[in-house]
Amino acid sequence: MDFADVDRDELERLKLLYRPLTDAVRELVDATIRTEVDDDVIREAHTELTDVTATLRDAGLSGPFGTKVTGDGISIAWGNAAVGTRNAIAPPLTIEVDDDGRHHSTVTLGAAYEGPPGLVHGGVCALVLDHVLGMTGSADGRRLTGTLTLKYLRGTPLGTVHAEARTISVDGRKATVRGTLSDADGVTVEAEGLFITPASRN
Amino acid sequence: MDFADVDRDELERLKLLYRPLTDAVRELVDATIRTEVDDDVIREAHTELTDVTATLRDAGLSGPFGTKVTGDGISIAWGNAAVGTRNAIAPPLTIEVDDDGRHHSTVTLGAAYEGPPGLVHGGVCALVLDHVLGMTGSADGRRLTGTLTLKYLRGTPLGTVHAEARTISVDGRKATVRGTLSDADGVTVEAEGLFITPASRN
Repeated sequence: MDFADVDRDELERLKLLYRPLTDAVRELVDATIRTEVDDDVIREAHTELTDVTATLRDAGLSGPFGTKVTGDGISIAWGNAAVGTRNAIAPPLTIEVDDDGRHHSTVTLGAAYEGPPGLVHGGVCALVLDHVLGMTGSADGRRLTGTLTLKYLRGTPLGTVHAEARTISVDGRKATVRGTLSDADGVTVEAEGLFITPASRN
Repeated sequence: MDFADVDRDELERLKLLYRPLTDAVRELVDATIRTEVDDDVIREAHTELTDVTATLRDAGLSGPFGTKVTGDGISIAWGNAAVGTRNAIAPPLTIEVDDDGRHHSTVTLGAAYEGPPGLVHGGVCALVLDHVLGMTGSADGRRLTGTLTLKYLRGTPLGTVHAEARTISVDGRKATVRGTLSDADGVTVEAEGLFITPASRN
C-alpha cells in the first residue's frame, strides 16, 4: 500500500477498517490467558487461528510497519508497541495535550498487562511512562530518550490508570521531563526522563 | 481448573496444549500489523476471530491469571506480560541462571515490539530489563522494585537481543542489581535497579 495516495478521508476509512480487527485480536489475547475450556476446543481454536493468519499473510509488508507518511503529511506509526492502531500489544494509549504542554493519557490495562498477581507489570508501567514522557519531550523537538528513572511507590492495580508528564527544564539540546502513573487513589510510579536532540538536527 | 491437582507430568501436558495456541496468537498479532490484504479479507478475519474468541470465552477465569501453585509446589504465572506461557503479549522471555548468580535471556523481538522505525520501543527495552533485573533481585529473596534507572546508549534494532543482570550489592533489606540489553554489536541500554524486601517478610 502506498500511503502517499492516502488523504484524510481515506485515512479515517482505513482506521475504521483496521481498528475492529486489532480490537478483536486484543480480546483474543485476553481470552487465551483466561480460558478454561476443554482441550479439544483449545486445539480447534489453534487450527482456526492458523487459518485466519494465513489469509492475512497472503499479502503484507516484508518487515515491521515503521512510520508511513500520508499525502497530507500525516505520520502514522500503526505498529507502535504503545500507541499502534494495528498493534494488539499496544493498550493502545491515546495521548492528549493541554494548552500548557502537559501530556496525559488514561487507559485501562487488563489481564494481559499483569506482573505480580492483580498488579500491572512494572515493565508495562515503564512502557506507558516512557511513551508519555517521550511524547512530551518530542513536543519540544527532542526525540531520543537518554535516561529514564522510575520510582515505584507501590503496586499499580490492573484497571484504569492515568499517566501524565510535563517538561521541567530545557538546557541546550537536553530537556528534562517528569511524569507520574496513578490509580484512583493517587500516584503509584514517579518517572523522570532526559531527552536529547541529536546534534545533526540542530 | 484446580492447579492443586496438577502434578509435573500434567503441567508439561498443559504447556504443550497452551503454547501452540499462544504462539498462534503471536503470529496473528504480527500478521495484523503487517497485512496488506484486501478489505473484505480483513473483515472476514475479524468475524472469524470474534467467533474463535467466543468459543474460548465459554468457560474461563473471572479475572487475571495471577499466580497458581501446583500440587508439587510449582508457582506458575502464565498471564505474566514478560514471561507468561499463555500471554501473547510476552515475547516470552526465558531466563537462565548461571552458577555465579548471573541471570540472562536471549529473545527475538519482532514487528510487534517496534517504537522508532526498525527499533525496539524504549518501553519494551524497559519491560525486558525490569523483568530480568527483578528476577535477579528475587533470587536473593527481594521482590519489589524500588527504583529502576535506564540509560539508553543507542537504539536497539528489532531482532535478537540479549539481556543479563547480576546483583551488585546487598545492604540490609535492599539489593542493587545491574544489567544490560545488547544486540550483536554490544550494549544498547544499561539498567540499575534497587529491590526491597517488604519488612513483613523478614
